[in-house]
Amino acid sequence: MILSGCGQQDGTEVTEAVLSHLSLVRAGCEVLFFAPSGPQARVIDHTTGHATAETRDALVESARIARGRIRPLSELDPAHVDGAWLPGGSGALQTLAPTPPRGAQPVALPDLSRVLRALHADGKPIGAVCIAPLTVLAALGAGEVTLGPDPSLGPRAAALGGVAHPTHADQPWVDTARRLVTVPAFMDHSAGIDRVATGIERAAEAFVAWATHPARAAAHVIVS
Amino acid sequence: MILSGCGQQDGTEVTEAVLSHLSLVRAGCEVLFFAPSGPQARVIDHTTGHATAETRDALVESARIARGRIRPLSELDPAHVDGAWLPGGSGALQTLAPTPPRGAQPVALPDLSRVLRALHADGKPIGAVCIAPLTVLAALGAGEVTLGPDPSLGPRAAALGGVAHPTHADQPWVDTARRLVTVPAFMDHSAGIDRVATGIERAAEAFVAWATHPARAAAHVIVS
Repeated sequence: MILSGCGQQDGTEVTEAVLSHLSLVRAGCEVLFFAPSGPQARVIDHTTGHATAETRDALVESARIARGRIRPLSELDPAHVDGAWLPGGSGALQTLAPTPPRGAQPVALPDLSRVLRALHADGKPIGAVCIAPLTVLAALGAGEVTLGPDPSLGPRAAALGGVAHPTHADQPWVDTARRLVTVPAFMDHSAGIDRVATGIERAAEAFVAWATHPARAAAHVIVS
Repeated sequence: MILSGCGQQDGTEVTEAVLSHLSLVRAGCEVLFFAPSGPQARVIDHTTGHATAETRDALVESARIARGRIRPLSELDPAHVDGAWLPGGSGALQTLAPTPPRGAQPVALPDLSRVLRALHADGKPIGAVCIAPLTVLAALGAGEVTLGPDPSLGPRAAALGGVAHPTHADQPWVDTARRLVTVPAFMDHSAGIDRVATGIERAAEAFVAWATHPARAAAHVIVS
């Protein structure tokens, strides 16, 4: 699991990370945590939504979710894992795939591109929650994903070479050809934690089916 | 739910808070978040375990878990809620019930004592996870709890007027007479997130039975 801080407005969305961890473990995974070492794109006071003058390190803050057991993304060898999973939160886009000052589109960190492209080339699955599918598209340049029920987000996926299918929180989208599963979670603003959890559970089941039983993948296309 | 920051080593344990939120909602609760406004007892780099020179506000950091929807503990009117739930983490003890500089025992914040004593007097349930049962004992002065499988923690409960029963992560302890349910979670160092979740789910079921169907409480004494 690749984190980017600790908090929905400037890092990894906490609820999505914990529910992903639980769902992946219950589906049979061992979960290892990684995050980029270096400053978060921003630090936000989550009671006001306003930026603060602080600087916080994405790896150090991510350790709050991972209970300390986390390593720098630069040390992630894709040959040693069976897939990658990205929870959402603003940091999943702004820190993992920042938009350059004069750029129009997010660009994945080199370490993230390295890892996701290698996994993809090896037929290993990638899971992404909430806004993180855009980050995956920034790294891979193609994919069918969901960004939640709002169809106006489609052009953002298209600009990165992808297609966004509007779905609700409990409805993952499975791109079987690319072994890519995405789920809206809190991108569905009507959803409470219960439906968010259901969607992540279903996405984790599809993900694990690829990671451990490649031949079964087709049986998991229908997950909603 | 009463939080105390965002991170196991200096605030609320993130995993326990999210799993508590999910379990309480799935058991039928509406969950409101509160935290004391003011500096955390300390700030710890969760990659090293060392204290930093930073100051962070417990309410502001807790908002990272609550997704911004959180109010000061001072505004919590116990007449308007059906119970209280405290996830663990070092902040649940150090910030919610700090030990005075020359004191031997933790002392609950006045707002916490006010809330927990009023709830208790009204027969409303209190749930506490991990180390937080000590905080509840500091407020109430009595109770049968669990602090996990390590029996050497018994004297810490006894010093606050309580009794600690050693149990594992998936085994809540239910003090039926006091409508107090506690569960070890990560105080059971052998437990992974799956067993921690199971224990919290069971504790939430016992808690909600009291909150909504007082007559059913006895049926929930056996939860392991």
